[in-house]
Amino acid sequence: MEYTFRKQIERIVSLTDTEFEYVLSFFVRKKYKRHQFVIQEGDPANYEYFVLSGLLKSYILDEGGKMHILQFAMEDWWLSDYTAYLTGMPATTFADCLENSELLGITKENKDKLCSEMHKMEHFFRVKSNYGYVALQRRILSLLCNDAQAKYRQLFELYPSLFQRVPKALLASYIGVSRETLSRLTISPDQD
Amino acid sequence: MEYTFRKQIERIVSLTDTEFEYVLSFFVRKKYKRHQFVIQEGDPANYEYFVLSGLLKSYILDEGGKMHILQFAMEDWWLSDYTAYLTGMPATTFADCLENSELLGITKENKDKLCSEMHKMEHFFRVKSNYGYVALQRRILSLLCNDAQAKYRQLFELYPSLFQRVPKALLASYIGVSRETLSRLTISPDQD
Repeated sequence: MEYTFRKQIERIVSLTDTEFEYVLSFFVRKKYKRHQFVIQEGDPANYEYFVLSGLLKSYILDEGGKMHILQFAMEDWWLSDYTAYLTGMPATTFADCLENSELLGITKENKDKLCSEMHKMEHFFRVKSNYGYVALQRRILSLLCNDAQAKYRQLFELYPSLFQRVPKALLASYIGVSRETLSRLTISPDQD
Repeated sequence: MEYTFRKQIERIVSLTDTEFEYVLSFFVRKKYKRHQFVIQEGDPANYEYFVLSGLLKSYILDEGGKMHILQFAMEDWWLSDYTAYLTGMPATTFADCLENSELLGITKENKDKLCSEMHKMEHFFRVKSNYGYVALQRRILSLLCNDAQAKYRQLFELYPSLFQRVPKALLASYIGVSRETLSRLTISPDQD
C-alpha cells in the first residue's frame, strides 16, 4: 500500500529501495475507523498525513455550529491542520473519517529532519507545497467568481470520484451553498 | 533595498555576503510605473516576483468583465500567476501596479537551479510556500464562514497598512462584497 506513496514521490524525485525505506522510517502508520477523529479543534496537530486508503474531511464549526468544509482527502492526498502543524498552536479545524482510513503521519520535527538530511525530499515537499498553493488559489477564484452551478460543475470535473463517495450535503458545504440549492444543481448542462 | 530581501531569507536560513550575492545573481531587477501591467492574461508568466518597493494587485476578470482580486502584494511579499509560472501555461490572471514598484524577478528555471545548487534556498522556498499555503487556507475559511463585516475586520487586522494604500473598491473586491456593502462596514465594532 506504501506503493502509492512511493509512486507520488517518484513523480518528482527518484529513490532507491534503501532511500524509500529510510523515508518511510520517518512516518508512523495509523488506522482509523469511519467517524473517528484524526484532528480535533483545540488539540495540537502533531502530524501531517498522507492517505494510503480511505477518505477524510477537514472542516471548521463556526460560532453558530455550522460546518464549513475546508478539504476532502482520499488516497494519495495530504491532510493536516497546517496552521497548527507549522506553528505548534492548537488546531482550529476538525478532521474525521468518512470511510475507514489508513494514513502515514509525519511530525513537523521528523519532516524537517528528513528534509535536512535528504535534499531531494526537501525538493519533493517544496514542489508538493507549490501544487497545494495553486489548488487553493483555484479554489479561492472559484469561491469569488462562480455561481453555485459553476462551482458544482468545477468540483465534479476536478474530482469526479468524490461524487461517488461523499454525501451531497458535504459537497454543498465544500462549495459554500445550501443543501437546498445543491439539490437543484446538475453536473452536466445537458442533464435533467 | 535588497536588504529587505536578505532579511526575509535570513529569518529562515543564514547566508554569507558571498552567498547572498550569488542568490541575487539569479534574479533580475525590474521597475514598473503605477498602472503598468506585470502579468497579463494569455501571456506566459515567466517570473515570480519579490516586491522591493511599491504595491501591486493580482486579479481575474470574469466572463461579465467583473474584477475579482486574488491578492495584493507590497514590500516583502511575493507575487506571480503561480499556475502559469509552474506549468508554463498562459496566465489566467492580471497583475498591475497600484504604485510605482520595484521588483526582483526569478524564472522557474533559475529558481529550480538555485534550489538544486543551494539546499538551504530550497529549504527557504519550501518554508515560504508552506506559509503561503496557510495564508490561503485562512482566506478560504474567511470566504466560507464570515459575513462581510467580519471579513472586512479580519483583513484590517491582518494587513492594516493596506487600508492606507488601497482604494476601498478594491478591498471590497478582495473580500468578495459589493462596494455599497463595504461603505456600510466599519473597522472597529465601536466605530461609527
